[in-house]
Amino acid sequence: MTDLPQSEREALIRAAHAAADAASAVTLRYFRGSDLNLQNKADGHFDPVTRADREAEAAIRSVLQQVRPADAILGEELGLLDGQSGLTWVLDPIDGTRGFISGTPTWGTLISVRNDKGPILGVIDQPYTGERFIGGFGAAELHRFGEVSQISVRPAPNLSGSILFTTFPEVGSTEEGAAFRALAAKVQLTRYGMDCYAYALLAAGTVDLVVEAGLQAYDVQAPIAVIQAAGGIVTNWRGGPAHDGGRILAAASAELHEAALEVLQAAPEP
Amino acid sequence: MTDLPQSEREALIRAAHAAADAASAVTLRYFRGSDLNLQNKADGHFDPVTRADREAEAAIRSVLQQVRPADAILGEELGLLDGQSGLTWVLDPIDGTRGFISGTPTWGTLISVRNDKGPILGVIDQPYTGERFIGGFGAAELHRFGEVSQISVRPAPNLSGSILFTTFPEVGSTEEGAAFRALAAKVQLTRYGMDCYAYALLAAGTVDLVVEAGLQAYDVQAPIAVIQAAGGIVTNWRGGPAHDGGRILAAASAELHEAALEVLQAAPEP
Repeated sequence: MTDLPQSEREALIRAAHAAADAASAVTLRYFRGSDLNLQNKADGHFDPVTRADREAEAAIRSVLQQVRPADAILGEELGLLDGQSGLTWVLDPIDGTRGFISGTPTWGTLISVRNDKGPILGVIDQPYTGERFIGGFGAAELHRFGEVSQISVRPAPNLSGSILFTTFPEVGSTEEGAAFRALAAKVQLTRYGMDCYAYALLAAGTVDLVVEAGLQAYDVQAPIAVIQAAGGIVTNWRGGPAHDGGRILAAASAELHEAALEVLQAAPEP
Repeated sequence: MTDLPQSEREALIRAAHAAADAASAVTLRYFRGSDLNLQNKADGHFDPVTRADREAEAAIRSVLQQVRPADAILGEELGLLDGQSGLTWVLDPIDGTRGFISGTPTWGTLISVRNDKGPILGVIDQPYTGERFIGGFGAAELHRFGEVSQISVRPAPNLSGSILFTTFPEVGSTEEGAAFRALAAKVQLTRYGMDCYAYALLAAGTVDLVVEAGLQAYDVQAPIAVIQAAGGIVTNWRGGPAHDGGRILAAASAELHEAALEVLQAAPEP
């Protein structure tokens, strides 16, 4: 499945762009507007979902059902649609809904395609800044305002010189939070609050590590595809596959990945 | 001094735009580049300053010395230049240098003018997103890609429904951090990592509270001018003037400001 013919690869890339375009038409209409119709998905804590999330996912699905009718679709808001091709589109229409409702330009629309082994193509789209990070089939690009640039991870510094991102300072469970803080104590700079945008920055070569816990498959499959295509590494905190979510360690180099893994492995199994 | 003639107000606004334009030509050249020539300003902790900081401030000063030769200038990187007009330009060429070196589009160039009572005009400029927030003389605007929109704070919810921002989870001293966390426990959503961009979002009506500690005058004078012009309130944690820096409480309404002040006042005097 990774040796798809070139025409099929191009069709997938075209479909991903078309899906991201459809989503951005919805998200930009609602971003910073007052008609979000915010609802709380979770009992007992704040897990917001907005009209923009649902309508953006519907827009993506409508495009994919037209141009990729044999593929399955799994989305955060609207569930699973079966397919026959062996490929599944995995969608998070707005990753970082908290950032979205706060007006920060650091949420993203995540669109990815996976086969039975994992993601093969991913898009992290930030339509307000105009940035679309796309990676797969050995190439990673940033599209912005009609310009396309190749992106890659940077030559990673040692752990003590590296920049680490995560979204919430708490980082998962008590044990996960402790492991994260042990890692944060060893890096030069730790920053918060960027959601999927942090993965895009790692792929674009401005940060070195992203560590999170408690993620879902749809939160991480597109970032994995983009980062791997840009030369980086994404695993769980044991060094195994991360595409089903959970605890994520993304790194700009194998050496840095190993150094961070050594610290994070102190966390007991969840 | 607050009843400056209209022609003088317009001259100040023009000078502020010209200064921000000059800074953005520098910052965008370095943003996400590899030639930042990063240095650490502080002993014992990481306080980065880059070539971009210094060159952007020099570019601003060059513009201001041409078009406002009688005004004083106080900048983060290059110190004080005396003037005779009673007006002082207060500058932070890159607020959020940590975000800048990490590639996040949430740093800003801060340019403000103050008289003997406090700031009368301020700019928060984010050239990568193309957003320039400007406030003073009773008007607050967002300029972006040639379009100008009026901005204002939103009708603030109760404390329990509000969105709170700060930059670092630690928030100042141990006592200041405890007071912050007491406040964070009472709001709906707390977010991190946005530096001056959080103040711009408050002025633009997408967040309700920004709380920080340990700020300098140049960190806060432009945000104060923009937020006040947009209908918000900025004080220290005792309800007094905040334009000399220190502990900052910015709120979208008088009621929300009072509710937050009640919690933060528990922090002992620094």
